[in-house]
Amino acid sequence: MTASFGPSYVRAIAPYVAGKPISEVAREFDLDEKTIVKLASNENPLGMPESAQRAMAQAASELGRYPDANAFELKAALSKRYGVPADWITLGNGSNDILEIAAHAFVEKDQSIVYAQYSFAVYALATQGLGARAIVVPAVGYGHDLGAMLAAITDDTRLIFVANPNNPTGTFIEGAKLEAFLDKVPRNVVVVLDEAYTEYLPQEKRYDSIAWVRRYPNLLVSRTFSKAFGLAGLRVGFAIAQPELTDLLNRLRQPFNVNTLAQAAAIAALNDRAFLEKSAVLNAQGYRRLTEAFDKLGLEYVPSDGNFVLVRVGNDDAAGNRVNLALLKQGVIVRPVGNYGLPQWLRVTIGLPEENEAFVAALEKALATV
Amino acid sequence: MTASFGPSYVRAIAPYVAGKPISEVAREFDLDEKTIVKLASNENPLGMPESAQRAMAQAASELGRYPDANAFELKAALSKRYGVPADWITLGNGSNDILEIAAHAFVEKDQSIVYAQYSFAVYALATQGLGARAIVVPAVGYGHDLGAMLAAITDDTRLIFVANPNNPTGTFIEGAKLEAFLDKVPRNVVVVLDEAYTEYLPQEKRYDSIAWVRRYPNLLVSRTFSKAFGLAGLRVGFAIAQPELTDLLNRLRQPFNVNTLAQAAAIAALNDRAFLEKSAVLNAQGYRRLTEAFDKLGLEYVPSDGNFVLVRVGNDDAAGNRVNLALLKQGVIVRPVGNYGLPQWLRVTIGLPEENEAFVAALEKALATV
Repeated sequence: MTASFGPSYVRAIAPYVAGKPISEVAREFDLDEKTIVKLASNENPLGMPESAQRAMAQAASELGRYPDANAFELKAALSKRYGVPADWITLGNGSNDILEIAAHAFVEKDQSIVYAQYSFAVYALATQGLGARAIVVPAVGYGHDLGAMLAAITDDTRLIFVANPNNPTGTFIEGAKLEAFLDKVPRNVVVVLDEAYTEYLPQEKRYDSIAWVRRYPNLLVSRTFSKAFGLAGLRVGFAIAQPELTDLLNRLRQPFNVNTLAQAAAIAALNDRAFLEKSAVLNAQGYRRLTEAFDKLGLEYVPSDGNFVLVRVGNDDAAGNRVNLALLKQGVIVRPVGNYGLPQWLRVTIGLPEENEAFVAALEKALATV
Repeated sequence: MTASFGPSYVRAIAPYVAGKPISEVAREFDLDEKTIVKLASNENPLGMPESAQRAMAQAASELGRYPDANAFELKAALSKRYGVPADWITLGNGSNDILEIAAHAFVEKDQSIVYAQYSFAVYALATQGLGARAIVVPAVGYGHDLGAMLAAITDDTRLIFVANPNNPTGTFIEGAKLEAFLDKVPRNVVVVLDEAYTEYLPQEKRYDSIAWVRRYPNLLVSRTFSKAFGLAGLRVGFAIAQPELTDLLNRLRQPFNVNTLAQAAAIAALNDRAFLEKSAVLNAQGYRRLTEAFDKLGLEYVPSDGNFVLVRVGNDDAAGNRVNLALLKQGVIVRPVGNYGLPQWLRVTIGLPEENEAFVAALEKALATV
């Protein structure tokens, strides 16, 4: 018998399944990369803003040097934009890094973490990676049941993940309900409010979570530059929390976790309000187009406040994979969500108008033939 | 009394101290950034190779997309270069990420990790972050005492870090000695052989650690693109190990830990043998220049096989910080190593010829005046 390495809780982890890259689908299905439409990873279909491209080009001359471990300039920009001191900010290699660091910083083995059914896959991975216990609270209407999440907190709970809007379902919790929830969470339990998609919210749904950070020492707001800001390929996310939490995150953060180009590009993207506005408008138009198509096809979908829609493509548990395969063969990549316990559904990122049309046409064909 | 967050072992961590960035020194000492010489972070003074710059520019159009989580192209290039299957390779956001993931994958709380006194600071941080027990084996001649490290292994030891060459001391262990060591390490203990500086070794000191990976299922070789390859600002490192270890690393690895540009640039840098050769020659010349100057000044130094030299700048425990400050005032940034228990020493990265001259001149002045 050979030795087996690592803690049992690490050996039990099933790795994250990423969206298939265009190059991989092209190889697998013998397609031309240029004709492939990828609506699988909730990326901004406009790509990276030009402002960020320019900033990146200017920063490209010093790449033999390590990045600024303290990210002086980017933290200053975030500090100004969100009205918090720089020592309330922690940077991550994407918000994935923030979520992992937070779990690691606040929870140890055999303590528990609370999160909702159908919420972001990284919450489960971060919990498993620590040998911590997951308390998964059943969803209501594919979204968070905050009352049940409060009731699920136990003596050994140290962290709660809340995604708003939620990925992969797109559900949204109103600000007033979240605030009431925060008020009732025990002060020794950290709430990680994951707002990866917050920039897509329409004006009337917005709320001021940074004001809550000022009020609640146990609240950490997580944001990303990978979605509306258009920098997924560069990897940068951030946390805003009071200094006690921030200080612990920074003890665990890898000092050079955010690369030089990401730091430069993020400053530009942060200040490019026109790009954000354009992205939100495009997304709202695309959402109308996709949901009209789903209505016409008689497909159930979950109303979404993100840049994606969860749609039910059949009533048997092979439906998601079956329709997904039929879409792949037509060069359209979306995300099957069987790993989320949603095998009848697909998650579709809202794309450019022509990408949305290509997806709708491929979906109609897929449903007619499978 | 307010709640205190996080496990006690996280609260006890002292964060990594990075080399001061040029911009920070310029602000602090009111200097012109252009006149500052930074020999503090063991970067390649030639910067990023042009081949990698070109590759990066070509990859810059798709940054709105997530990176390829499986890094198909980069793994293929590494696989070809090092003669191992792609599923023996794990990519990291710098080798710092590899070291952290390895500790996390193979060790749990209250188990132990063995490493040498005066070896790389991240070994201690990774150990502390897990609430694991550090067994720090006293150095001999500022380097690893492999016999004592073997003897220090206990029943609960799960990992040993070995740095070769070692940072911050530059010491080197011959291949034959390492091989004999690997032969004696219990098969349930993972050896992480950190070869961040291996590309600087002269031909006669080289050994084939990849062949050892084929022989020892408990060996993980860690490499980086941040040193001789010149890509510190982009963040990419990698591990080579047999599939059982690699599989566990990939369960914990953040799926998008290596950004798109880093993947593209690393492929180019990997194949740019001329740049590596030029870097090694420049380094050997600089090493001769610095050590001649130390000899002339009567300063003790540790013979180094890295791209840096550890030099004793005084015989009292304030010497390192005192001389460092005198250097900073002259716009020369090196690394004080009091945090390594070496308060009488400074670590100096070997720079371009003119940077080495500026450092030597500033050091002479500093020693004459402090």
